[in-house]
Amino acid sequence: MIVYGKNVFSQLKNDPEAIEKIYIQKGLNDQKIWKSIKEQNTIVEICSKQKLDKLTKNEVHQGIVCQVKEIPTYSIYDLLQKTKTPGLIVALDGIQDPHNVGAILRTCDCAGVDGVILCKHNSAGLTPAAIKASTGAAYTIPVSIVTNLSQTLKLLKEKGYWIVGTDMINARDYRTGMYDVPIVLIIGNEGKGISNLVKKQCDYMVTLPMEGKITSLNASVACGILLYQIHSQRHPL
Amino acid sequence: MIVYGKNVFSQLKNDPEAIEKIYIQKGLNDQKIWKSIKEQNTIVEICSKQKLDKLTKNEVHQGIVCQVKEIPTYSIYDLLQKTKTPGLIVALDGIQDPHNVGAILRTCDCAGVDGVILCKHNSAGLTPAAIKASTGAAYTIPVSIVTNLSQTLKLLKEKGYWIVGTDMINARDYRTGMYDVPIVLIIGNEGKGISNLVKKQCDYMVTLPMEGKITSLNASVACGILLYQIHSQRHPL
Repeated sequence: MIVYGKNVFSQLKNDPEAIEKIYIQKGLNDQKIWKSIKEQNTIVEICSKQKLDKLTKNEVHQGIVCQVKEIPTYSIYDLLQKTKTPGLIVALDGIQDPHNVGAILRTCDCAGVDGVILCKHNSAGLTPAAIKASTGAAYTIPVSIVTNLSQTLKLLKEKGYWIVGTDMINARDYRTGMYDVPIVLIIGNEGKGISNLVKKQCDYMVTLPMEGKITSLNASVACGILLYQIHSQRHPL
Repeated sequence: MIVYGKNVFSQLKNDPEAIEKIYIQKGLNDQKIWKSIKEQNTIVEICSKQKLDKLTKNEVHQGIVCQVKEIPTYSIYDLLQKTKTPGLIVALDGIQDPHNVGAILRTCDCAGVDGVILCKHNSAGLTPAAIKASTGAAYTIPVSIVTNLSQTLKLLKEKGYWIVGTDMINARDYRTGMYDVPIVLIIGNEGKGISNLVKKQCDYMVTLPMEGKITSLNASVACGILLYQIHSQRHPL
C-alpha cells in the first residue's frame, strides 16, 4: 500500500518495520526528513514530483511517499485487551468520506480513545486518503474491522459497555450523558445518520444543540465535541 | 461563481435572488430538487454529468450546480451590527484548506456564532470547495474579509471584545476560559498555528488536552470543541 505526507511519515518512523520502500522528491527542502531517511534501514528512491504525483494519483503528498505493509488490524477481543478503565471505543456506522475517517482517527488519538471499529462494507476503510487525513493516527490507534456492527455491539454490551448513539430526536443533551461507564460512541453516516439495526443496540442517544439553519455538524466535528465532553467528565478540573 | 451540491442548493433556495442559472443533471433521481426547481424564477439547463463535471472541475456535485452572484461579505462595522449579546466571532488566521474553511462555517452556524472573519491574503477564501463543505452555511453566517487581522482585532478590543487564541504552551485549560464576555476566537493555520502578530493581540490562550501521540487536532474539529464549550458555558444546563 502507498501512503504519503509528512505527518504520516513522521509517525511511520516509529514503526520502521512497516516501511517497505521510501520515495522522496528530488531536492525536497526539508532537512528533518532527509536526516531521518538517512537513519532508516530501507530502500529509498529519489525521484521526480511527477512520479510521486502518479504514485499518489495526484493527491497532496508533500514530497514524501512510502510503500508500506498493510496497517495491522485487531479482532474485537484483542481490541478489548488494549482498553483502559473505563474503556472508550468509537464505532463508525457507514462513514463514506475517507477524510472523515482520517480526521476521526486523529481526534480519537488526541482524546485518548482506546480503539476504533470500522465496518467492512459500505464504508470508507483505511485507504491512503484516510491515513493521510489521520496525520499518522492510523498507526497509533488500534482499529478493528467488523462485518456486522450490530452483532459486535451486542458482544460489547455483554462485556459491560454502554452503547451511545447520536440523533436529533429522542435524544438527551450531550452534557447529560453518563460517561463514567465503559462506552462505545457510535458515529453515523454523513447523510443518513445511524442505521436502524445499530440504533436498536443503543442504550441511549445524545444530541448537540443546533442554533442555526444548518441541521447537522460534520461527522468528525461532532465526534470531537462528544469525545472531549466524555474526556471532560472523566477528567474534571 | 459556480457552486454545487444538494445541501448548498437547499440553502440557496432561501435566497433565490442569488441564483443566476441552475444546471441539473439529466435524469437526476431526486424529486425534492426537481420540485423546487419548478418553483424557481430562473434559467435552468438540463445537461449531462460530463458537463457538470467540467463546470465543477471534477468535484462531487451530486447532479446540481448553480451559477450564483458572489456571496455578499460585510465590513467589520456591519458585522458588529449583527451580533447578539455577548457577541461571538470566529477569526481564521491563515487557514489553507477550503474544506476546513467550509467545515468551520458549518460549525459556526450550528454553534450560534454571529460572524466569521477571513484574511484576504495567504488563506483559503469563499471558494466553491469551501461553500460545498459549508453545506450552505456560507449563505447563513455573515462573513467579513480583512486585509490586516491584527489591526481588526485591535478595533474589536476597543469595542469590548476579548481575543482568545489557541496554543499548546502558555495556555489555560479550555474549560477555564472566561466566555461570558464578547469573544473573538482565533483559529490558526493548520501547520503553524496563530501568527506572532495576531498572538500579540490575544488576551489569553486556551489549550485542549492531548492524550495520544498526535500533537494537534484538525482545525475544524478544534474549533467545534471550543465553540461548544463556549456555548455550554453560556447556556448552562
